[in-house]
Amino acid sequence: MNTSEFRRRGKEMVDYVANYMEGIEGRQVYPDVEPGYLRPLIPDSAPQEPDTFEDIINDIEKIIMPGVTHWHSPYFFAYFPTASSYPAMLADMLCGAIGCIGFSWAASPACTELETVMMDWLGKMLELPKAFLTENAGEGGGVIQGSASEATLVALLAARTKAIHRLQAASPELTQAAIMEKLVAYSSDQAHSSVERAGLIGGVKLKAIPSDGNFAMRASALQEALERDRAAGLIPFFVVATLGTTTCCSFDNLLEVGPICNKEDMWLHVDAAYAGSAFICPEFRHLLNGVEFADSFNFNPHKWLLVNFDCSAMWVKKRSDLTGAFRLDPTYLKHSHQDSGLITDYRHWQIPLGRRFRSLKMWFVFRMYGVKGLQAYIRKHVQLSHEFESLVLQDPRFEICAEVTLGLVCFRLKGSNKVNEALLQRINSAKKIHLVPCHLRDKFVLRFAICSRTVESAHVQRAWEHIKELAADVLQAERE
Amino acid sequence: MNTSEFRRRGKEMVDYVANYMEGIEGRQVYPDVEPGYLRPLIPDSAPQEPDTFEDIINDIEKIIMPGVTHWHSPYFFAYFPTASSYPAMLADMLCGAIGCIGFSWAASPACTELETVMMDWLGKMLELPKAFLTENAGEGGGVIQGSASEATLVALLAARTKAIHRLQAASPELTQAAIMEKLVAYSSDQAHSSVERAGLIGGVKLKAIPSDGNFAMRASALQEALERDRAAGLIPFFVVATLGTTTCCSFDNLLEVGPICNKEDMWLHVDAAYAGSAFICPEFRHLLNGVEFADSFNFNPHKWLLVNFDCSAMWVKKRSDLTGAFRLDPTYLKHSHQDSGLITDYRHWQIPLGRRFRSLKMWFVFRMYGVKGLQAYIRKHVQLSHEFESLVLQDPRFEICAEVTLGLVCFRLKGSNKVNEALLQRINSAKKIHLVPCHLRDKFVLRFAICSRTVESAHVQRAWEHIKELAADVLQAERE
Repeated sequence: MNTSEFRRRGKEMVDYVANYMEGIEGRQVYPDVEPGYLRPLIPDSAPQEPDTFEDIINDIEKIIMPGVTHWHSPYFFAYFPTASSYPAMLADMLCGAIGCIGFSWAASPACTELETVMMDWLGKMLELPKAFLTENAGEGGGVIQGSASEATLVALLAARTKAIHRLQAASPELTQAAIMEKLVAYSSDQAHSSVERAGLIGGVKLKAIPSDGNFAMRASALQEALERDRAAGLIPFFVVATLGTTTCCSFDNLLEVGPICNKEDMWLHVDAAYAGSAFICPEFRHLLNGVEFADSFNFNPHKWLLVNFDCSAMWVKKRSDLTGAFRLDPTYLKHSHQDSGLITDYRHWQIPLGRRFRSLKMWFVFRMYGVKGLQAYIRKHVQLSHEFESLVLQDPRFEICAEVTLGLVCFRLKGSNKVNEALLQRINSAKKIHLVPCHLRDKFVLRFAICSRTVESAHVQRAWEHIKELAADVLQAERE
Repeated sequence: MNTSEFRRRGKEMVDYVANYMEGIEGRQVYPDVEPGYLRPLIPDSAPQEPDTFEDIINDIEKIIMPGVTHWHSPYFFAYFPTASSYPAMLADMLCGAIGCIGFSWAASPACTELETVMMDWLGKMLELPKAFLTENAGEGGGVIQGSASEATLVALLAARTKAIHRLQAASPELTQAAIMEKLVAYSSDQAHSSVERAGLIGGVKLKAIPSDGNFAMRASALQEALERDRAAGLIPFFVVATLGTTTCCSFDNLLEVGPICNKEDMWLHVDAAYAGSAFICPEFRHLLNGVEFADSFNFNPHKWLLVNFDCSAMWVKKRSDLTGAFRLDPTYLKHSHQDSGLITDYRHWQIPLGRRFRSLKMWFVFRMYGVKGLQAYIRKHVQLSHEFESLVLQDPRFEICAEVTLGLVCFRLKGSNKVNEALLQRINSAKKIHLVPCHLRDKFVLRFAICSRTVESAHVQRAWEHIKELAADVLQAERE
């Protein structure tokens, strides 16, 4: 494909994308296909001679779309939102064209420098403590990771390295393995599965702290675990506090947990993957209070801040803690500025070596929405979740299972897990809307997450009518 | 930005991208900026009210482009190629619009299923042993990782888990930490820095095996290390063999190393990050001989197979080895098909949870180039590197430092490291072309990598004339 054909096909693709977005409401949100549907539809090996672009674009509707779960449909209420906006898509086109791999400053100075400044912009939108910002030549700074899972892992590894160094400095005879055997990390029993995975990968124990009645980690439970584990000879070194859990958007008590971490010399990582975006609104900023105690903080603009995946924003108070854990400098990656102290080589901040020019997406989105536009977007979603909450509350057959703070409503039919499982099964079989469940303690609960950029009150109302109808069927079937 | 504005701006962006690509040869390949150039050029916080698209697009030329290293310039000969093609860019536009997060089959069946089939297509292009493919319901399969670093880490973690399970089955009293203390992994002293990093992250020892005169890992050196380490009570469990090292594109001897790994029950991971793409050509396929001994194999279509970053292809012989190392199943990610044995949930194959619809890029590229088109592309690059090699060989002041097999030429002025450092410094200060160096043993060496999709013989010839001129200056300066 030469450049003039790209001009033509690129514009056709822009129209395809625009048509897809405009028509998404008309597509069934969850596909009808069964496992293995795709393989028989395409050849079993790549063609020797080129296919035409027409062949391919026709196959998108024939082969791909029938198997797509439409995450951006206004009837998609599953998981958490994943961001989608036109400015981010335009920026991604530019990112693909520049196509630089920004592992070091020299590999593309603009890629590194825009990222550093965008992370400062975003940090200021959240009113993060100055210690996390790069401007004013502090020790902190921000980096774009691919996902919150990676941010948690990177924080855990940095904390592990720091703990090992500290303990070996005090007792040089200790081996790394002897220390790792005793290291123990903590998170709430409501934390995301990626936290447990980070512990598995890092080869350290991870213990779940029982959350309180609001599904929050509190001081007392953490303190109890610390005392028990220290008495058993273990070495607490790392705590993940979650702001906005995946199950029910509960908030660990940072103001209680933070000071304990600081006092006990444990790295505090704050994971606000979903909820973080809301903190750009002054009325939700209090939920972030206590971040001043954290060593690292992360949230995903690619969830709820209109910056398409992947863009997971992570800040650390002391960037040398991260880079110290990973730094390796082969000759082919050295460059003349690297020891000047003036530059950032982001490869030392992350697991992969390569990285795309992802800050372009932030720059486009922040500028084309403005802070006020982004705040309005968050507020609209929160308002829609409260609208759904009040619909649920008006129906005595249903109950709300956790406080509704942002865009997630956890609800269920009063009654058994079985009846709720049957309800979810009916909802997802009907495929008019799409939800996923969670467990809160021993209760099977339905999660209704406001997701799409284009979801409106009418969609929420229609979804609720549909849920009510299916609930009546389920309850009827139960009585029979 | 509404959909109709996106139609307009998207088409403008297509033209911007096309113009950038058409005019890239006229841009200075390496930028003039100094560290910190960007921050003063933009506001210190995000705007409250939206900027216009015109503002942003104008700032691209004013603020971004002056700081870009143009990786797709035909005068870029640094690092290794990173892929850029129009079909991949078109697919990425579609990927951004669908915007699904494919962590499970249910999260978007097409995303998972196309990936599985594309990995089979690509595996067949390379004539990978059938054990690595998914079709015919074998135990193996392929997955798209973000980078070769992640593939190496994932393989090491899977091998670590497998070794721990095996040793604990034999001796249940052994703790994980007691085993990890004794685990030892190996790679050649020419392996990429990401291998050492994987060892650091995984908390296991990694030892460098001295390579031979051709910078290849051989049986004798590996065997020697194994015997010494076993005698010292260590437990060898993992070997990374590199096909096409970053320093000089040397090849570890798989046919020697592979059988040792199998006999000694060590996981063999083959990293062909750069060179792997060449194996689609029958005349280079012999370089992959011995892959039949491997447990996992990885290369980067995002380097040399025209699939834009990120797309790192990884295959394993036994997919349960990977998924067993990472599997966690919270309720909000469960779906009705997951225990059917019919589906793949790729989140168990990788470090992050989220993943984009990256197989679209492979599908577009493989179909629009055809296998023959991709082979022709590889051959052209190899031919250009041999052309450069022969230019170097014709000049008695220079020497070739490693065998030229694919698209990389390692060369230097006969003489001191100092004179070669001075030459590189002049080349990269002149900014007409861009190269990076490496060390081969104690020699400072210049790497000339054929990178751009649009590089032609004329660019290589011009680059060589330029290098010769600067070399004359350097040699002159040395005599004075």
